[in-house]
Amino acid sequence: MPDLLTKLPFQGTVECLLLNPDRKSGLEKQMVQESRLLFSGIEGDCHGGLTRKSDSRMLKQFKRGTLVRNARQLSILSTEELAEVANAMGILHVKPDWVGANLVTRGIPDLTLLPPSTRLQFPSGAMIVVDIENLPCRYPADIIEKHHPEQTAGFVKAAKHKRGVVGWVEAEGTIRKGDAITIWVPPLRPYPHA
Amino acid sequence: MPDLLTKLPFQGTVECLLLNPDRKSGLEKQMVQESRLLFSGIEGDCHGGLTRKSDSRMLKQFKRGTLVRNARQLSILSTEELAEVANAMGILHVKPDWVGANLVTRGIPDLTLLPPSTRLQFPSGAMIVVDIENLPCRYPADIIEKHHPEQTAGFVKAAKHKRGVVGWVEAEGTIRKGDAITIWVPPLRPYPHA
Repeated sequence: MPDLLTKLPFQGTVECLLLNPDRKSGLEKQMVQESRLLFSGIEGDCHGGLTRKSDSRMLKQFKRGTLVRNARQLSILSTEELAEVANAMGILHVKPDWVGANLVTRGIPDLTLLPPSTRLQFPSGAMIVVDIENLPCRYPADIIEKHHPEQTAGFVKAAKHKRGVVGWVEAEGTIRKGDAITIWVPPLRPYPHA
Repeated sequence: MPDLLTKLPFQGTVECLLLNPDRKSGLEKQMVQESRLLFSGIEGDCHGGLTRKSDSRMLKQFKRGTLVRNARQLSILSTEELAEVANAMGILHVKPDWVGANLVTRGIPDLTLLPPSTRLQFPSGAMIVVDIENLPCRYPADIIEKHHPEQTAGFVKAAKHKRGVVGWVEAEGTIRKGDAITIWVPPLRPYPHA
């Protein structure tokens, strides 16, 4: 049988992992050495769950608060794109905990442009499926502004197509700081009627 | 906030719905007037479940039998592509129950080329997310050969990029024969490092 997924010729690395046990504390998260991925998301993270209530991102598809499958179990960003965003904002860095990251990668260029249904594979066997690009919104913008009132450009504009992707757990397992990340991409082709 | 998903300017229609309560009976399914979509898949269909065992399609990613999230809850094909496949095989038609379809659409051109993470929305509010293209394999080929030993070309070759897509339920609801299907596609762009 032909292969549907193609392995990219390079790997990424887990630069850091973050956990947010409590949604009330906002997007800011704590660094951890490892995270246990369950079908319901990261163990102990407040964005976990097999389902969630639809939010403002989905108002064209769902009435707010509709119960939907949780395809946003993890927020994944890259070291390289975070540095580009900081540069565009005229500040030294954008810390991953300011933007609600669960996983920060190194070595995956243009992480945000990874196509939907890309698979990220870890040495334990854990697998994450990319649902879609994440969009910059006001919440991290407010946090960054609190830390860096001197910024020369806003986060929402600076982070366009550099805010990472969201995804869900396809296979359970533990992921650790320093882990290699193997990347499997689906067929890439235009849809001729869009 | 900018929109991540774009609504296509045309809609599809539900041409027919099929249910297979028992995996032992093979791919052949029974026609139904409506199907209830649950987070676990189609109610009463043997391919349902929140998880499933990985199969031969995923041998490069998983040891066979690994427990994975079920992103193949539904098999979706189009009337138009089924007709093209039949034509290429030199037979009158390929019946949807021969190829394991759960949902057959009409009016969505090149259904198989719909990009991963495309959303298919139904009047009840039910939503299906496309995971990925389906690949033609020997099982339906054997069934069709049984019905049409006179075929002039094999199914596997004739159905390449015309075998539909598989997907999972994002929002629950009933879908009915004749329902309109609204299509939401994710951003379409190349990944520059593949």
